[in-house]
Amino acid sequence: MSNFRINKKSKKSKARVGGLYTKHGVVKTPFFLPIATRGSVKTVTPEELQDLGAEIILTNTYHLYLRPSLSVIKKARGLHQFMHWSGPILTDSGGYQVFSLAKSRKINEKGVEFHDNLSGQKHLLTPEKAIEIQKTLGSDIMMVLDECTPYPCPKSYAKKSVELTTRWAKRCRTKYQELRTKNNVSRDSKFKVQSSWLLFGIVQGSVYKDLRLKSASDLIILDFDGYAVGGLAVGEPVAKMYEVLDWVLSSLPVDKPRYLMGVGKPEQIVEAVKKGIDMFDCVIPTRNARHALLYKFKIQSPKFKMEVQNSKFYEEIHIKQAKYASDMRPLDPHCDCYTCQNYSRAYLRHLFMGGEPLALRLATIHNLRFFLQLMYRLRIFIKNGKL
Amino acid sequence: MSNFRINKKSKKSKARVGGLYTKHGVVKTPFFLPIATRGSVKTVTPEELQDLGAEIILTNTYHLYLRPSLSVIKKARGLHQFMHWSGPILTDSGGYQVFSLAKSRKINEKGVEFHDNLSGQKHLLTPEKAIEIQKTLGSDIMMVLDECTPYPCPKSYAKKSVELTTRWAKRCRTKYQELRTKNNVSRDSKFKVQSSWLLFGIVQGSVYKDLRLKSASDLIILDFDGYAVGGLAVGEPVAKMYEVLDWVLSSLPVDKPRYLMGVGKPEQIVEAVKKGIDMFDCVIPTRNARHALLYKFKIQSPKFKMEVQNSKFYEEIHIKQAKYASDMRPLDPHCDCYTCQNYSRAYLRHLFMGGEPLALRLATIHNLRFFLQLMYRLRIFIKNGKL
Repeated sequence: MSNFRINKKSKKSKARVGGLYTKHGVVKTPFFLPIATRGSVKTVTPEELQDLGAEIILTNTYHLYLRPSLSVIKKARGLHQFMHWSGPILTDSGGYQVFSLAKSRKINEKGVEFHDNLSGQKHLLTPEKAIEIQKTLGSDIMMVLDECTPYPCPKSYAKKSVELTTRWAKRCRTKYQELRTKNNVSRDSKFKVQSSWLLFGIVQGSVYKDLRLKSASDLIILDFDGYAVGGLAVGEPVAKMYEVLDWVLSSLPVDKPRYLMGVGKPEQIVEAVKKGIDMFDCVIPTRNARHALLYKFKIQSPKFKMEVQNSKFYEEIHIKQAKYASDMRPLDPHCDCYTCQNYSRAYLRHLFMGGEPLALRLATIHNLRFFLQLMYRLRIFIKNGKL
Repeated sequence: MSNFRINKKSKKSKARVGGLYTKHGVVKTPFFLPIATRGSVKTVTPEELQDLGAEIILTNTYHLYLRPSLSVIKKARGLHQFMHWSGPILTDSGGYQVFSLAKSRKINEKGVEFHDNLSGQKHLLTPEKAIEIQKTLGSDIMMVLDECTPYPCPKSYAKKSVELTTRWAKRCRTKYQELRTKNNVSRDSKFKVQSSWLLFGIVQGSVYKDLRLKSASDLIILDFDGYAVGGLAVGEPVAKMYEVLDWVLSSLPVDKPRYLMGVGKPEQIVEAVKKGIDMFDCVIPTRNARHALLYKFKIQSPKFKMEVQNSKFYEEIHIKQAKYASDMRPLDPHCDCYTCQNYSRAYLRHLFMGGEPLALRLATIHNLRFFLQLMYRLRIFIKNGKL
């Protein structure tokens, strides 16, 4: 039995709505993961996240492993307890941050050796260790250790890298199965859906079709609970990203959840949902909020669905611009978030200009609501056969 | 009729409990004013402030006058509407910030001329203008324009300064009366208590008894709605502060509210309440929170009252210290605030160490609760004849 259930497939596109079953609850797909890098979505509380409609969050293994450390999180009886979040948590493998943040990293068959960016201490992250760490955190959805190739990437390197990623994926799968057996978690549960901790494979292969297809087919054999598409949104042209996505998605099993890592802009999310992606994570709503860049739907439903088709369905508001100085309207008069219900653009601008910390919080609340509202609308449109 | 009602006077000290009636509601005295410098108590929302037990806040006229400017606040129909706070607001006159922040300020009989620290533009702040600005903000409790002398301050300067402050106070009083008449606000209302906007005088005179007494008696003639003690907590020894307070309080009318500006530490608040002070404002709880310094009651009521007598009733927690790294207890197991109810010391430390903005918010919530809880306990003790 699968942990994923599709409730309806679109007839107009490859989009689908469904539910992903985790041990901390069901998450309606397609969904967006707010990012809680160090076990906190910057400026907001778990209660606020829930109010905003977030059903699942992502935390970064690398950061949490270094600080507060696994021993502290163990003592707290897991990350959920530590950070006061009762919903599901997806953890990355830590690999991405090792490659982007750590110093003097060396990749070999065994894993990746690095000096961390906090203490300079030496570490070895192996596929097995990546799984163990995520298990200790109490992750609901774990990711395999992979190498995310940069863009551009020579084909020779991409080939070597993706082959290593596949071998690592296999070792992750083995370690995961070992832990499941040890913890007496059967995959053939008596329930129609399983709700245990899950492990996702990650398709790599840069922008090379044969590598991408090989990566996908190799991973499928390992029978993961879901498949992520990695190595995208790393600087390649958007058209190329969509092309790669088409290759990969056509070869992934339809009945497993698909996760597009690190994406993205609202129109990219819409496009990827239409291609059959079920999960997204991105720092855009939260990071841009802290840089005073806010999102607003241009047109409200039901006209919204028309607009979604041509990517003109939203606008960006740079709230620090002088034109908002005495604009007493809410950011978005149609938005139901706390910020739009209670504050004017003029007040938001004033807080940003004065460096007031409440600015970041009110902006984060609004932007997260925009992204979560977008996912909600997409689910409704798919259900109603309109996407 | 007065805007102030004393419900009970202590027999053991000069402490009293009562209520201050403003046009945005009654505030139980003695009370503490959280500081919303630019129209926002840093990191927290008005709803959170109310949950924490805050009934009134203080905003800084100088900051708001410069940014967003009076025209913006006028367009928002006042500061309450602009910042989404429905309770009373006390505004300072702007004088203190002119003296501490502005460049090349010149004091003369007319007022104070300065170049602001944002645009460098030249301004003239007169007593009349200070009142007009506060009226435009929609202040519930206005303060007269005064000169807050530094410590130490030569007597010759203190004398000249306090005499000017008195002449300015008179002009503020006249302007205030003019605005009241224009706005048809009668002081002899048919209600038992008045609930209009109020004006407080500020007693100055540095550490010189004759100057302090003269300042007080000159202001009393002007019949203000309340009296503040200014020019304290500016670097003088605490014993000297208490001495000055004794001089001033013995000469102020008993039936008017007394406000000790810029104070202070928890034990100073307790001491000043016992001397008959009804109002306090200080950045300590909010600013220290942002610097990871947290407050905790040592002993819970009812033993608390014993401890209050000898100033050992609380401790300071420097939450970034290594000893809290795996401390899974709440900051204060007896505290009812959101932070203590849901997070461990280890988590708070982790957020601070990682520079996570939620740290500042959770710490601010706790420290404000500590100060507001302290005021609550003091009111209860006075009512029960135990302070």
